[in-house]
Amino acid sequence: MAIIKKQQLDKLKNKASELLSRSLDQHINLAVTGLSCSGKTAFITSLVNQLINEGSSSQLSFFDPVHHGNFIAAKRVPQKNLSVPRFDYDRAISSLTNEMPSWPEPTHGISELRLAIRYQPKKSLLKYATDMATLTLDITDYPGEWLLDLPMLNQTYEQWSEQTHALLLAAPRDKLSQEFLTKVKKIDPFGLADEELLAQIAKEYTELLHAFRYELGLSVIQPGRFILPAELAGAPVLEFFPFPNLTKIDSNEYQNASDECYIGMLRSRYIEYKEQVVEVFYHQHFLRFDRQIVLADCLTPLNACSDNSGSESFADLQLAIDMILESYSYGQSGLFSRLFSPKIDKLLFAATKADHVTSEQHAPMVSLLNQLIYQSKHKLNYEAIEMKTIAIAAVKSTTSGKTLHKGQRISVIQGNTLPKGQGLTEKITLFPGAVPEKLPEKNYWQQCAFNFINFLPAMGMVKHQPLPHIRMDQVLQFLLADKMI
Amino acid sequence: MAIIKKQQLDKLKNKASELLSRSLDQHINLAVTGLSCSGKTAFITSLVNQLINEGSSSQLSFFDPVHHGNFIAAKRVPQKNLSVPRFDYDRAISSLTNEMPSWPEPTHGISELRLAIRYQPKKSLLKYATDMATLTLDITDYPGEWLLDLPMLNQTYEQWSEQTHALLLAAPRDKLSQEFLTKVKKIDPFGLADEELLAQIAKEYTELLHAFRYELGLSVIQPGRFILPAELAGAPVLEFFPFPNLTKIDSNEYQNASDECYIGMLRSRYIEYKEQVVEVFYHQHFLRFDRQIVLADCLTPLNACSDNSGSESFADLQLAIDMILESYSYGQSGLFSRLFSPKIDKLLFAATKADHVTSEQHAPMVSLLNQLIYQSKHKLNYEAIEMKTIAIAAVKSTTSGKTLHKGQRISVIQGNTLPKGQGLTEKITLFPGAVPEKLPEKNYWQQCAFNFINFLPAMGMVKHQPLPHIRMDQVLQFLLADKMI
Repeated sequence: MAIIKKQQLDKLKNKASELLSRSLDQHINLAVTGLSCSGKTAFITSLVNQLINEGSSSQLSFFDPVHHGNFIAAKRVPQKNLSVPRFDYDRAISSLTNEMPSWPEPTHGISELRLAIRYQPKKSLLKYATDMATLTLDITDYPGEWLLDLPMLNQTYEQWSEQTHALLLAAPRDKLSQEFLTKVKKIDPFGLADEELLAQIAKEYTELLHAFRYELGLSVIQPGRFILPAELAGAPVLEFFPFPNLTKIDSNEYQNASDECYIGMLRSRYIEYKEQVVEVFYHQHFLRFDRQIVLADCLTPLNACSDNSGSESFADLQLAIDMILESYSYGQSGLFSRLFSPKIDKLLFAATKADHVTSEQHAPMVSLLNQLIYQSKHKLNYEAIEMKTIAIAAVKSTTSGKTLHKGQRISVIQGNTLPKGQGLTEKITLFPGAVPEKLPEKNYWQQCAFNFINFLPAMGMVKHQPLPHIRMDQVLQFLLADKMI
Repeated sequence: MAIIKKQQLDKLKNKASELLSRSLDQHINLAVTGLSCSGKTAFITSLVNQLINEGSSSQLSFFDPVHHGNFIAAKRVPQKNLSVPRFDYDRAISSLTNEMPSWPEPTHGISELRLAIRYQPKKSLLKYATDMATLTLDITDYPGEWLLDLPMLNQTYEQWSEQTHALLLAAPRDKLSQEFLTKVKKIDPFGLADEELLAQIAKEYTELLHAFRYELGLSVIQPGRFILPAELAGAPVLEFFPFPNLTKIDSNEYQNASDECYIGMLRSRYIEYKEQVVEVFYHQHFLRFDRQIVLADCLTPLNACSDNSGSESFADLQLAIDMILESYSYGQSGLFSRLFSPKIDKLLFAATKADHVTSEQHAPMVSLLNQLIYQSKHKLNYEAIEMKTIAIAAVKSTTSGKTLHKGQRISVIQGNTLPKGQGLTEKITLFPGAVPEKLPEKNYWQQCAFNFINFLPAMGMVKHQPLPHIRMDQVLQFLLADKMI
């Protein structure tokens, strides 16, 4: 009888501990976004890969739960929100680990993935309750453009038009905007709107945005949904554009303009866009995020040579970061009042592709990114958010070494080039150049001193082993470690 | 002074009349849907074309407002719901009226178009108030599959699985379903779910639905959103499928199954699909519709020869019509309680492509469609809805005439064939055969008596003139005329 009672007691104790630990279990909503081909898909794939394959061959020594031995295991579990596409980890890891590896296809729109991370609590209250706790990590991947749309919530159509018009008039956008602006200027703002004409000019504006993004490599693309319309393709809510010189129009006349005239129709569609697209994202997703990582490629703009595109790309990246920080800016001067403020407590800016330069260039990469961020006028409002900048390679595609050049030992990297012509790749060794610690001056660009090339993922990576990386452990440390003590 | 007062008085009177007529203005939400390539886009294009080009060369003599001279004019105006794609009338009318005409591209998903129709009220109260009234016509185009999803609202996952499993086991679906069913049978319903396996089998089920639709020409495709996923592509809510033999599972065990096992996960996704996809369509669109036209192609199945596919296609069309009627069936026995019932008061079934047979075959076409409809078990619940069947050609692509055949004068049609090989079309004259007045018996199919071919749109149609048609005026009469008196 004593034995049975002991068993029952143990069962009860286990049950109690399970209930307690369940209520104490940790949860993080991690948002991942990026600007201009920054490698979001590779980043999420590597993050998941590192966690679910953590074991003997650990590469996560700067991630405390691993370093201190209280990380147990992680696995993928079904996500909660069934109406959001699942992040396709299997497809991405397959393309990285194929015999002929390739970078995973970029995602379009939003996707989600949930991990359950088992660990042994060592310091927190949990250690009295249980031997094993679970951190549930929801990773949400969404286009950087959606983040850049958030400031629109705080702008009227006039304000947005003015700001966007100024952008269109400035280099480098001015080269491509002329025709669009000429067409818009011909419109009588108070004339009876012709929907077909609006649709046609909105299409041209959308094509402009595509060109800014993919030809000029710019970051500030607004409205972001125009280039990723999904189910809204062809809907009037995506058929508006900025109307220049609204400040020159009589403001009473503007306020009283009916929805049937050009300016009224454009305004009402802008308002609908804010309410039906931007606010919906804000409420359904953005408000739920606890932590955010923003990926940025700061290397590609350094390649620019002789013309101004490099400095212009940097200026645009800086503007984009400024707009992003505005969304996290709390308090009276910020975009959102405290009442509706997002609950983000950690914000990480990561300069990606650190494996594409030699390792002593990582510190300058971080300095450069810091300069982009700390020049922002929003920097003062962040008491509530912990911010960090870091240089990473989610999936390391090069090896580094030394070589003799004119009698001096210099650092070099070695990797496989992206396939050309016949689909052939070749192994090359190079020193891509020095990354400037500050935003480069004009004469930097004339030297063409930087030669950054894109590499293929390394051959021979294995699906069920941790991928090689640079500083993914520090990423995990910043984003997760404090919830696993 | 008297003159000024008179002017003021007139102004006041006009103002009053304007206010009154505005409040009395009519409005119709017309829903257009179709089963299996029935020609929705051509139908809407023709309907809009007939109304906006109505004038001297009238072809609408059976449409009373035109016949009695109180139709004034119609024009396209901006739609109200900005988040729904606009029906692309201009593109569709262009492809019909090009030098080398073609049928307009089919639409995917939902789209809208609004017409303002000016008319002179002659009988209604309005005639005392105003010389001119406006009927606002909102046309909503949506896939027939969405209508076929509505009965799911009334089904549990078990019921839906059972019904769908029965369909998969019956001809003609059984030929293609075997592999899918074998895979599903291997699943332990209470085993811990592997999301990747579910995703893979759901993908196979989706491919099956595609094959049913495009290879076998069937009408009942459920869940409809699987073949038109738009922004839900890759979302777990589209990753479920019917699970056979659920009735053989212990019902307590089934009810208590957690969401983490296979059967629990499938069930929770089915429920999510009903709530997030079907109900959203139901509330945002279906409940608003006043009138519905369902287009059906009854001719293509008649072409089937020697095998059973013709009678199977008809059986499937009949099942689809049955499911549609269920959605409109009021009262206690119907799908929806009166409280949430749709407000549709007129329902028109149109057999399309009437120009593809000779005119004396139109009556049998209508009989055939009537038979499909009135065999429905739901026919008794329709006191509140006026129903009609009709044979139409939205855009007439043939001319008809007589020819001598073995000494007898027989009716023939003449038109241009769809381009083959080199993109060449040829003019042909033929008698496609007799349309049976009733659902054909088995031996009908063995005779191969029917030879229906698809024609190109007629050459030389003009954008800003009414398109040739068959009975579009009767369609307008049924759907609109009572609101224009």
